[in-house]
Amino acid sequence: MKSASSLEELIAALRCLPGVGPKSAQRMAYHLLQRDPQGAARLAAALTETLARVRHCEKCNNYAEEPVCGLCSSPRRDPAQLCVVEAPGDLLMMEQAQCYQGRYFVLMGALSPLDGVGPREIHLDRLIQRAADGVVREVVLATNFTVEGEATAHYIGEALRVRGLKVTRIARGLPVGGELEHVDSGTLAQAMLERREA
Amino acid sequence: MKSASSLEELIAALRCLPGVGPKSAQRMAYHLLQRDPQGAARLAAALTETLARVRHCEKCNNYAEEPVCGLCSSPRRDPAQLCVVEAPGDLLMMEQAQCYQGRYFVLMGALSPLDGVGPREIHLDRLIQRAADGVVREVVLATNFTVEGEATAHYIGEALRVRGLKVTRIARGLPVGGELEHVDSGTLAQAMLERREA
Repeated sequence: MKSASSLEELIAALRCLPGVGPKSAQRMAYHLLQRDPQGAARLAAALTETLARVRHCEKCNNYAEEPVCGLCSSPRRDPAQLCVVEAPGDLLMMEQAQCYQGRYFVLMGALSPLDGVGPREIHLDRLIQRAADGVVREVVLATNFTVEGEATAHYIGEALRVRGLKVTRIARGLPVGGELEHVDSGTLAQAMLERREA
Repeated sequence: MKSASSLEELIAALRCLPGVGPKSAQRMAYHLLQRDPQGAARLAAALTETLARVRHCEKCNNYAEEPVCGLCSSPRRDPAQLCVVEAPGDLLMMEQAQCYQGRYFVLMGALSPLDGVGPREIHLDRLIQRAADGVVREVVLATNFTVEGEATAHYIGEALRVRGLKVTRIARGLPVGGELEHVDSGTLAQAMLERREA
């Protein structure tokens, strides 16, 4: 009942990946060894490289290799709009939707007092400072429509509005292609509440 | 629409893991950066270490750090029995079942001519040599009950029987706790065919 100990360590280390349990970790380790040692070497190098180089953009707080990321320094983005998202993945989704031409601020989380995530953890001070640069006219809150995301949007909205900034929230309603029969009642009720003239 | 390029490379590299698509890779990369940089460093080290140290055991062909693995050199294992499995994970399953006290041979695959996996790829020569050491009395074929596994068992069985070795195959039948109502008809038919005196 002995196997290579560095292999055991690899299987254990793979479990630091989200959603990877003991079985998956084992399958991944064997796959890398047997079918893709080059991929394994590439992954090791990418991990080391990323840890060494990636930091937070001084302006938007997203991950970046430069002090200020490409999106924040791009002259093609509207500096009067600032969109607040919870996570880097949300920013990517916004960019893929190609519906927004302004700048961003990434909270790297959402308010969740029970988990110890307060205003400090979501960098509220930096957001307020960023939004108060005199150029930003509108802050678009694009946090998730979860309990945490909603609370975060509400909290940030209050903090920015008292500083005289225009604050908006992305709309809630039926998804594109959504059918009334299959949508949950909460979404439908909200869509009715936020109805607009056709 | 710019992100850190070493981060992009990390996301691409994570896709060498089996079952990891673009979305999962992105989630994993952000998770490592935001919540578990220590885990990322550990994973990078484990990958490098494993690639550098793990090779195949000279006797059983399983992964090992020594020329001959602990299981093959253990005096507590019965050298007269040799169990043939397709993959290292299968060996682990056998060990976890604690139903076998002999030695192993790991094919690292199953015959699949269409995929270019022939007798050479499953190390048939080495298996024959291993089984003909004069000590092995019985070879237990524990390949999967898939088309490839069955073909592999048949092929190996033929090759070993002509050399005068006793060859057995693990049983097929209903799983422990299995109910007739829920088992597939092929398994049921085979269980009937291979019925034994109670």
